[in-house]
Amino acid sequence: MFESADLDHRIDKEQWAREVPELRSALLAAQYELVKSARFPVILLIGGVDGAGKGETVNLLSEWMDPRHIQTNALRPLPEEPGDRPPMWPFWNALPPKGAIGIFAGSWYTVPLLARVYGDIGGAELTRRIQDIARFERMLTDEGALLLKFWFHLSKKEQKRRLETLAASKKTAWRVTDTDWRHFALYDRFRKISERVVQGTSTGEAPWIIVDGADARYRGLTVGRSILGALKKRLSHASPPAVVRAPPLIAPVDDVHVIGSLDLTKKLASEEDYEDQLAKQQGRLNLLSRHRKFAKISIVVAFEGCDAAGKGGAIRRVTRALDSRHYEVIPIAAPSDEEKARPYLWRFWRRIPARGRMAIFDRSWYGRVLVERVEGFCAEPDWMRAYSEINDFEEQLVKNDTLVVKFWLQVSPDEQLRRFQERERTPWKQFKITPDDWRNREKWDQYVAAVGDMVDRTSTAHAPWTLVEANDKYFARIKILKALADRIEERLE
Amino acid sequence: MFESADLDHRIDKEQWAREVPELRSALLAAQYELVKSARFPVILLIGGVDGAGKGETVNLLSEWMDPRHIQTNALRPLPEEPGDRPPMWPFWNALPPKGAIGIFAGSWYTVPLLARVYGDIGGAELTRRIQDIARFERMLTDEGALLLKFWFHLSKKEQKRRLETLAASKKTAWRVTDTDWRHFALYDRFRKISERVVQGTSTGEAPWIIVDGADARYRGLTVGRSILGALKKRLSHASPPAVVRAPPLIAPVDDVHVIGSLDLTKKLASEEDYEDQLAKQQGRLNLLSRHRKFAKISIVVAFEGCDAAGKGGAIRRVTRALDSRHYEVIPIAAPSDEEKARPYLWRFWRRIPARGRMAIFDRSWYGRVLVERVEGFCAEPDWMRAYSEINDFEEQLVKNDTLVVKFWLQVSPDEQLRRFQERERTPWKQFKITPDDWRNREKWDQYVAAVGDMVDRTSTAHAPWTLVEANDKYFARIKILKALADRIEERLE
Repeated sequence: MFESADLDHRIDKEQWAREVPELRSALLAAQYELVKSARFPVILLIGGVDGAGKGETVNLLSEWMDPRHIQTNALRPLPEEPGDRPPMWPFWNALPPKGAIGIFAGSWYTVPLLARVYGDIGGAELTRRIQDIARFERMLTDEGALLLKFWFHLSKKEQKRRLETLAASKKTAWRVTDTDWRHFALYDRFRKISERVVQGTSTGEAPWIIVDGADARYRGLTVGRSILGALKKRLSHASPPAVVRAPPLIAPVDDVHVIGSLDLTKKLASEEDYEDQLAKQQGRLNLLSRHRKFAKISIVVAFEGCDAAGKGGAIRRVTRALDSRHYEVIPIAAPSDEEKARPYLWRFWRRIPARGRMAIFDRSWYGRVLVERVEGFCAEPDWMRAYSEINDFEEQLVKNDTLVVKFWLQVSPDEQLRRFQERERTPWKQFKITPDDWRNREKWDQYVAAVGDMVDRTSTAHAPWTLVEANDKYFARIKILKALADRIEERLE
Repeated sequence: MFESADLDHRIDKEQWAREVPELRSALLAAQYELVKSARFPVILLIGGVDGAGKGETVNLLSEWMDPRHIQTNALRPLPEEPGDRPPMWPFWNALPPKGAIGIFAGSWYTVPLLARVYGDIGGAELTRRIQDIARFERMLTDEGALLLKFWFHLSKKEQKRRLETLAASKKTAWRVTDTDWRHFALYDRFRKISERVVQGTSTGEAPWIIVDGADARYRGLTVGRSILGALKKRLSHASPPAVVRAPPLIAPVDDVHVIGSLDLTKKLASEEDYEDQLAKQQGRLNLLSRHRKFAKISIVVAFEGCDAAGKGGAIRRVTRALDSRHYEVIPIAAPSDEEKARPYLWRFWRRIPARGRMAIFDRSWYGRVLVERVEGFCAEPDWMRAYSEINDFEEQLVKNDTLVVKFWLQVSPDEQLRRFQERERTPWKQFKITPDDWRNREKWDQYVAAVGDMVDRTSTAHAPWTLVEANDKYFARIKILKALADRIEERLE
């Protein structure tokens, strides 16, 4: 697929001088419209062959447009050995907000591609990574990002000529490194594998644009015009309608569902029984947190549940067993404006824990398929795609030695009513009950359906849900502590 | 000053059982009021002798209050060798937002104190660092933070007994490290130096509270009650009135001021002259950015100036000389809500560059003493104290090998009017002119006074202002490029 780029594309000085001024001011005007509207972010990937002008093009774009609204990320490719956080973490963190342009020179393609070229990973692993990348990029475009991917190509002959020219001059010889020559020796292999990657990740929403890198003027005009065209097209349309990719959810034909099948009468025999078991499970958890392997993993715990199901109380029973240096509790309320300007999962990615730490989320990324779905805060296609995005997110955590533990706390409507009324009666609990709580209660059946779908679609082998019968708060707390300790124990041994 | 803590303070089981429930619920209620009002952050420092129960107290507080609104920071003390960013950077980043409690176990005291105990720094250097800390803490309290500092003390006898008890049991022997015994051997020295530090940083707004750490119940009640008392007192009052510490500014008795003395008629001879000098200075800058020592320093450039003085154009002339991997342009507009919830300088601290990078601020931290002062967006005491806070900020940057370069671009009222009118006439420049610009123009004299005060108070030896006569944009750009290159050159050689 690089054949066209193998041809000799050249733009002469006159054409360049004629076209650039107009292109520049059009690009600048489009950029300011982007900034002003702040409707979507633009993400530019610059990949390809060394020496094909990637760096020069990044500089050119920063010069043509207003650099105040461009973020350039020359992220060093991460080492293959496991880092503190998943490989995609630095990229998530560097995502530009709506209205800005983020340029990635050295992107999520760099590591898998080079790993395959060097033979560190096999073809099957590369295929898997390409699929991961494709899903990540689909999420970006689904979230509204304008994603443009440029692949800079050089023919073998041209690359050789270029390296030799640089090496021949005293002034530029330092720019040619041993790595460059080693890569050149691998040219054919690199080309074959690149073709496969470019092919496997050229999608309708984000195709690769192949650019012959031999002629600086040709590549500059090609990239500039491509960006201008895509930007203008996107700015002139309203946001594209969201697309549903998941099969439609089927309303259950009977009244049997995962929530209905819970036995909410489960309870502990006595308060004494509770105190005994509490001490035992907290002791276990504490011991586990001092296990020598604990520092090598990280733990993410998500608490979801009906209003007044006892999430806060359960979380405090967990944290009391731990040293405060080992955990962080992250309450999820309304997103900040920095969070609103980025893809939905960004606010969770930025908070994932380092090794040796536990992050306890009081409500979580599941808000998308629970409250946002039921209350209509996001469109159906958006929460429909969230299931697979969430599964991808959790899978990446698990692959990076993070234990993902998820609890759903369920109470019956009667028990919830009792607790609401108790909160209203108790002065220091009144802050815990709001008109929202009463409103949510009226949508009980819709929430039950949403929870059922959530569990069906996101209880995976690597991150299963634990459903907790929570009418008896003692029973619930012990079940949670025990399940958490079991999961950690299993992971450490 | 630790004499009282040398005494044997004990609380018996009965008193503990009697007092704790009430204390806990009062603490929790106060915490929720804090969360709801989100008026100020609470910052708790836990310092003192090893083995005096610092960690246990942090855990206790997380247990007594709602851990969802507590951030615990067990920041590893930074190594003494220079890091990528100034020593205070991790602390700035970890500051809690309004409404939250941030606990620092291992704080900005840890490194200077141990460095002095080990003899790595002398007494004079310790004094200097104590002064830095005192200024930082005054900034925190001036910004509204409730700062509570607890010093956990153990008598020498008690510390020895404690280490021996731990070491004697198989279960706990692992907790006693060689470092613990080495520190114990230095007990008297540690005590003497601690006394000096505690004394030098006990201020009216943030005194140290000395706690005898020998008895767990005594120290738990002491800390809990202190926090409760301070929190309730602070919540019951409106925000304390800001205090002016700087001497009042004197209105000039004549019409001679730094801005008035600029010769705004300065200009270049011709456009050709400009092109020549531009190429020359950009070439210099580019060469400097590839200097082998460039990777060891970082550069912060602040651009300030009248509206329409040509900041953006000048910035683009700088960035064009650089590789986009070497710089970032940071436009300063309205703060995000995460930024509004923290001290004024937080949003600048979080963006300071790593070594080898240049951060170009298009408008900067000087907004406080310019637009915020003139427009009345902040109270006089707040902008009055900003001068010294800014000087501290820049001094910390400079000490960490950051070159701080500051430009003020000045145009005459007539030239500004001409540019405003031109912007209104030119379709693709219209977005650059807003009603605000016309309003600011009416306050010309107030801005001139503010700029004069700013230059007087913040043009320091380590971070001087460069005033730029900007009626001729060519002259201005060349002056800026040359000054920047000169400063970098001087720094690298």
